[in-house]
Amino acid sequence: MYGAGDVRVVDVPDPKIQLPTDALVRVLRACVCGSDLHPFRSLPATPEGTPMGHEFVGVVEEVGAEVSAVAPGDVVIAPFAWSDGSCPFCREGLQTSCLHGGFWAAGGIGGGQAEAVRVPFAEGTLVKAPVAEDSGLLPSLLTLSDVYGTGYHAAVKGGVAAGSTVTVIGDGAVGLLAVLASRQLGAERIVLMGRHKTRTDLGREFGATDVVAERGEEGIAAVRELTGGHGSPIVLEAVGHMPAYEQAFGVVRPGGVISRVGVPQYEEAPIGFGSLFRHNITLTGGPAPARAYIDTLMPAVLDGTADPGKVFDRTVSLEETPAGYRAMDERSALKVLIRP
Amino acid sequence: MYGAGDVRVVDVPDPKIQLPTDALVRVLRACVCGSDLHPFRSLPATPEGTPMGHEFVGVVEEVGAEVSAVAPGDVVIAPFAWSDGSCPFCREGLQTSCLHGGFWAAGGIGGGQAEAVRVPFAEGTLVKAPVAEDSGLLPSLLTLSDVYGTGYHAAVKGGVAAGSTVTVIGDGAVGLLAVLASRQLGAERIVLMGRHKTRTDLGREFGATDVVAERGEEGIAAVRELTGGHGSPIVLEAVGHMPAYEQAFGVVRPGGVISRVGVPQYEEAPIGFGSLFRHNITLTGGPAPARAYIDTLMPAVLDGTADPGKVFDRTVSLEETPAGYRAMDERSALKVLIRP
Repeated sequence: MYGAGDVRVVDVPDPKIQLPTDALVRVLRACVCGSDLHPFRSLPATPEGTPMGHEFVGVVEEVGAEVSAVAPGDVVIAPFAWSDGSCPFCREGLQTSCLHGGFWAAGGIGGGQAEAVRVPFAEGTLVKAPVAEDSGLLPSLLTLSDVYGTGYHAAVKGGVAAGSTVTVIGDGAVGLLAVLASRQLGAERIVLMGRHKTRTDLGREFGATDVVAERGEEGIAAVRELTGGHGSPIVLEAVGHMPAYEQAFGVVRPGGVISRVGVPQYEEAPIGFGSLFRHNITLTGGPAPARAYIDTLMPAVLDGTADPGKVFDRTVSLEETPAGYRAMDERSALKVLIRP
Repeated sequence: MYGAGDVRVVDVPDPKIQLPTDALVRVLRACVCGSDLHPFRSLPATPEGTPMGHEFVGVVEEVGAEVSAVAPGDVVIAPFAWSDGSCPFCREGLQTSCLHGGFWAAGGIGGGQAEAVRVPFAEGTLVKAPVAEDSGLLPSLLTLSDVYGTGYHAAVKGGVAAGSTVTVIGDGAVGLLAVLASRQLGAERIVLMGRHKTRTDLGREFGATDVVAERGEEGIAAVRELTGGHGSPIVLEAVGHMPAYEQAFGVVRPGGVISRVGVPQYEEAPIGFGSLFRHNITLTGGPAPARAYIDTLMPAVLDGTADPGKVFDRTVSLEETPAGYRAMDERSALKVLIRP
């Protein structure tokens, strides 16, 4: 990406093993993330550009001398943050705060929207998936890189459990998979706030019991009416823009929790007496430690119980990636799968 | 209070029972709260003034026809919010969000810095204390109105448990009692941030294992060093001013929790990627449902195990209340007891 709206497919030097803890992975499937749209709309132009993409599944081609947990030929899932697997935060399951980890497409590490990627700390980062290179499950496994794990993180941090009443704000891939995760965790009532019918229909399929298309005061009133008049005990915010946050504290019940997983496009926001404090609202969430959830979520994908890959409604080749960005930006596609 | 710095003791009509759910309480002890200092520093002047005080213990003088849980002659504790005791939030123990409740010294209800108070929803609001009018325990019981319950709320919402590492920001009465509460809940390491030695000495007596007098970057570095280098998993913010909040997200560990009970003197504050989101920090807290904690905390007060009344370091008569405000404002007193 060379600036807002300017995505190009260019040849770069092949990645190579640099450290004994590296693996070289050939990408089987990658995708465009809702969060990629933020730079697509605002990145200042640069002559050198930046690699893109933080979600991919691939085949291990080569490993460094210290890597034995994955081997050439393995199909692997790469979470959206790479991590050493051994620091205190990795051991606690908060791999996104790994002391030695980082994010793709930054600091000399390539992005997933490519033919191949050098993976640092391969043993800490990658999870082997017991499928073949041509498996029909690849799209669903790819969601474990980010959007499914992120939706699940929202639900876990929000405290969703059997019988919960949950409101999900946002009908993008993360919001829809937050619905799926909430249902898997036993939520009884799941209100989905979104106004794109094809998306909210998928939300219903994933487990939403109610859909609220209205926004602002009207949307708040509708959610309150659906949740007993006092608001929703758990609110999952899967957008990241200020109006979604305002919607969140508008619909949350006194004593309730707002769990954010949409990357905030603001730094300052209301949290004082008039918004969070007065009624003891808890605000939680952050970048999902997707790595921590892959083992939990993969079995239902493998046995077909869960089909999170339904969020992909368009497939493009690597060369067609710029068109994929445009389709998501125009909202003509929910989530674009890239097949290098 | 007739405006900033302008506290007067004036005669007002005696309160009377107005509703069958009311009680009339003669005040035995009241006090000045750190949160009373906010209007003392900023309240716009008005000719009619406003009653003050939201913490009191007293004797029931008279009850309405529907009140039987407390009776004339009973010594009672009034929490800083009155509540009906029967709405969904009261039943859940979040009495500060009672659907029909409110705060003292507002909306026609008097304040505790007075000789007598009409108490709405007496059965929902008051808790009987099994002591005599001249009990030496009255100061400690008075802390159950607010500061002790508020410190305890901070610890509970912060998730303090056996073995916890906790940092408490603020050496006012609430901060010191947050230390006491953390110790009671089993915290192993309790770092108190404050720079008034007489107060932090009392904090050590209540259970603080370390005291950090530095503020800003220096204070953050000191706390990080004391807590293993990565910060404090639990931070209790007992001040309410922006620098205290900034200190909180400066010292909190990735994945940790900031529990606020100091009434925020700001509405907007940093909560985006650079402050809370990046490392999955949880922000929680709010006005303590002091009513919910009185039954839990009173036994240790009655048997002398806990002595939260030590936060009172000055006693004044009702007539001397203005001097009490000044002493707290100048920080020559930690907390002023009023003995009408």
